[in-house]
Amino acid sequence: MEEKIRTLSTLYARHFSASLDEVRLRTGNITERIKIDHPEAAAVVAFPDPKRILMVRQWRYAIGRETLEIPAGKIDPGESLRECARRELLEETGFNAQNLFSLFRYYPAIGYSNEVIEIFAASELTKTSEKLDEDEIARVELVDLDHVFDLISRGIIQDGKTVIGICLFRALAERKEIPANFFR
Amino acid sequence: MEEKIRTLSTLYARHFSASLDEVRLRTGNITERIKIDHPEAAAVVAFPDPKRILMVRQWRYAIGRETLEIPAGKIDPGESLRECARRELLEETGFNAQNLFSLFRYYPAIGYSNEVIEIFAASELTKTSEKLDEDEIARVELVDLDHVFDLISRGIIQDGKTVIGICLFRALAERKEIPANFFR
Repeated sequence: MEEKIRTLSTLYARHFSASLDEVRLRTGNITERIKIDHPEAAAVVAFPDPKRILMVRQWRYAIGRETLEIPAGKIDPGESLRECARRELLEETGFNAQNLFSLFRYYPAIGYSNEVIEIFAASELTKTSEKLDEDEIARVELVDLDHVFDLISRGIIQDGKTVIGICLFRALAERKEIPANFFR
Repeated sequence: MEEKIRTLSTLYARHFSASLDEVRLRTGNITERIKIDHPEAAAVVAFPDPKRILMVRQWRYAIGRETLEIPAGKIDPGESLRECARRELLEETGFNAQNLFSLFRYYPAIGYSNEVIEIFAASELTKTSEKLDEDEIARVELVDLDHVFDLISRGIIQDGKTVIGICLFRALAERKEIPANFFR
């Protein structure tokens, strides 16, 4: 294991923090590690019909450009990840999901962040709101699932959670592991 | 787009930095964003034979436990991502790869980090070194590709780059998009 000797400095943001720690490695050698302490997050592959999913165009400050991604966001205090997925889908697309199925739970940046993202598949959607989170979302798009996979294999979609959500949904569907009543 | 107003604070580590910025959103509203400025990185799905891949067990400080992952690491100055993939594979497993094929290039944590990971598939491996990077790697394992997919679908492997590497390799193989001479 690796053991913290001391925290050298910390940067606090509203929802998370970054620390630089001095750490003793398994060999006894000393090094520094950055650790982001991040709340859990949820993402949703949401199907208004069995062939198409909802995606959002948004500006990503960290990479300085607009991207096409599945809806996602950080958990609020007191919320479950399932509730978080449902709320983020509603806030970002205006659709409420009756049916949510957990696809996968993973660490996106295991080298320096404790963030966990749980990805859900959602069906039985109803448009319930016209008011979207305009601070974050530029546009909602309905995209054919095969086209999304094409955008991934051409390197146009480069967002990790979107790739994992789409690839695992397809792999589970091929193995007949999506619940039979998911699309009814 | 989102525009930086000013940097509120910055934390510097040896290989990267984290900044807390005050930012003007597309609506004109003001918020804070954390941005990790991270070097590019490479990861490798390396095949000593067509059915098995090399994986490493290592302690992950950010999540406080040991994981099973594909070999990976940050780029060194002056190096290409392909050279980085080859070097990390050698340092972490002792195997040199003759043949490297780029599978995918993506953003693992698009919400707060500019890190890019390029994932390669590697074949024509030769064991050339017994001396591994003991600071990082506890053990090298040779794992059946079908078993890795099983560990992913059971939620035992939860590392994003490993999931993307395995899933995309399988998807490309099914679509006959892996070069014909990859396994010869």
